[in-house]
Amino acid sequence: MQIQQIILTHTPQGVPVLSDFALGHAHLPGPQSGEVLVRVYALSMDPYLRSAMAGKHLSASIHPGDLVRGEGLVEVIESHDLRMVVGEKWVAPCGWRTHAVLDAQSIPQCRRVDPQINPISLALGGLGMPGLTAWAGFNILSQAQPHQTWVVSAASGAVGATVGQLARIAGCRVIGIAGGSEKCEWVTRIAGFNDCIDYKNTPLTTALKQLCPKGIDVYFDNVGGEVLHAAIENLALHARVILCGLMSQYNGASPSQLNAGSLIRARATVRGLVVYDHWQHMQQMTKELGAYYRAGQLHFREEIQHGLNQVPAAFCRLMRGENQGKSVVLLDN
Amino acid sequence: MQIQQIILTHTPQGVPVLSDFALGHAHLPGPQSGEVLVRVYALSMDPYLRSAMAGKHLSASIHPGDLVRGEGLVEVIESHDLRMVVGEKWVAPCGWRTHAVLDAQSIPQCRRVDPQINPISLALGGLGMPGLTAWAGFNILSQAQPHQTWVVSAASGAVGATVGQLARIAGCRVIGIAGGSEKCEWVTRIAGFNDCIDYKNTPLTTALKQLCPKGIDVYFDNVGGEVLHAAIENLALHARVILCGLMSQYNGASPSQLNAGSLIRARATVRGLVVYDHWQHMQQMTKELGAYYRAGQLHFREEIQHGLNQVPAAFCRLMRGENQGKSVVLLDN
Repeated sequence: MQIQQIILTHTPQGVPVLSDFALGHAHLPGPQSGEVLVRVYALSMDPYLRSAMAGKHLSASIHPGDLVRGEGLVEVIESHDLRMVVGEKWVAPCGWRTHAVLDAQSIPQCRRVDPQINPISLALGGLGMPGLTAWAGFNILSQAQPHQTWVVSAASGAVGATVGQLARIAGCRVIGIAGGSEKCEWVTRIAGFNDCIDYKNTPLTTALKQLCPKGIDVYFDNVGGEVLHAAIENLALHARVILCGLMSQYNGASPSQLNAGSLIRARATVRGLVVYDHWQHMQQMTKELGAYYRAGQLHFREEIQHGLNQVPAAFCRLMRGENQGKSVVLLDN
Repeated sequence: MQIQQIILTHTPQGVPVLSDFALGHAHLPGPQSGEVLVRVYALSMDPYLRSAMAGKHLSASIHPGDLVRGEGLVEVIESHDLRMVVGEKWVAPCGWRTHAVLDAQSIPQCRRVDPQINPISLALGGLGMPGLTAWAGFNILSQAQPHQTWVVSAASGAVGATVGQLARIAGCRVIGIAGGSEKCEWVTRIAGFNDCIDYKNTPLTTALKQLCPKGIDVYFDNVGGEVLHAAIENLALHARVILCGLMSQYNGASPSQLNAGSLIRARATVRGLVVYDHWQHMQQMTKELGAYYRAGQLHFREEIQHGLNQVPAAFCRLMRGENQGKSVVLLDN
């Protein structure tokens, strides 16, 4: 069948631009034995893809000429695998295209979506990979205690907003860091963080000292770079630091560094978090966070675009940090 | 009484030199109520003092004109405190001088030395602060498991040699890093490490890859700088890194940094170690390590100098990394 797809045309230099991508047609061979044909319903825009385009991510690289990888919400159209039933919705590594054929290698990476999830796009965000990242960071790595002071960077992002709310629900004092007053307002008013520092318009170190006079007990980092540096200089004794993402360097900045002397002074514990290690908790995460969403205790913000041709613009916007909430493109095809 | 003492005359620039110190006479007032007069028997040369001279250590700074602080082994001569009895040997923050008066502030920082320790200078090294540092790093921070691959920097130093031998006794494979063939030979032949990399004469990254083909499970760092960097790039999945000292920067090099991306990739856990947090384990450490020494399972190397006038030379030698073993000066006064 004829499908539409998005190809990477150039390895982005710095922040990606529209001309790094091209929309085109392609022929998709029909599914063979053991394969499944799916229609792509929605695509998830994720910063790690920028890192893969630079050849720096744990997952495989994306080179010029390649279909852009990435997860999406798909509907099964034709199935030659007993696990996937026609009509079901799944999250799958489908790539940026209107239809995909999933094979023996990609099917094990797919997960069925509970049809009760509402809106269903949450399966890509608050109840998807970002949700699991936040859940694992909070439940497995943070050793959260009530009344701790937490600081979360990229606090309006999918992971940051979720992990900060989990800490808030657990009785911690949670300070966000985000860029711009609109994001900060959402973080405090809707996500219920105790405060949020607009790092674009406030000297970060001063603000951290003021808001965390006894130091930071848990710092959850999604960005690296100067924000990470400022947080490390403001740790409380026996602080924990969770390294989850390096948004500041995905566009090509120099590697983020932690000062060893500051970690020794604080007797800090630093842990690296990779969501791939925690897939086995997906069901538990969905159950727990799903209950919080239904009870109105947890909030998730989405920014929805429409149409495959809008995917490059949505991704570039994400990588400029201009998105307000989890960026999802509905294909409407 | 008239005593001899060593004053810091200049804040060292880079590696300390003899002219940064001056030997002189001073008048020591006799002990008052609650105070204790001690004769200094031996002084411990410790790298952290260089950091204090730069005003960068956790403990108080040492300024030009100050008596140089530092721990020593002392003998009680006149006591007005019930806890300290004439004739006993104690480890005390006596400073670089022949006699000292300990007061209500310094007496709680002293600890009595078991007279059975042989040689008694071990109370400053293998069974002293370096011994406790190694014991705490191994028992409290490392979560050692048999067959792990350990790498220890400054492996012939007081802390490094001890912690590496504890890991070896626990059934780990232990690789040392040290400067020069003489140190490396002691580390493998006497301390029984499986191997030792002479970082001054071997490309470190290549050697680490060769000796740790599956990566480093536990890296115990005493030096920071480029050695730390090379180790961080060779971590195994779920590695642990213990940050214990920054010898490479005590002489003024730029702050040691850890690459955040490498820590995330390895899902590493990094912990800062400060011995002051673990004083409560001193007795347990002395008992456990003392038994290993008596059984010949644990070895400790000392470099003994004689006379207060040799203290600056011994300290400068230590800070040039030329000492072969724990540097102790016996005052013979």
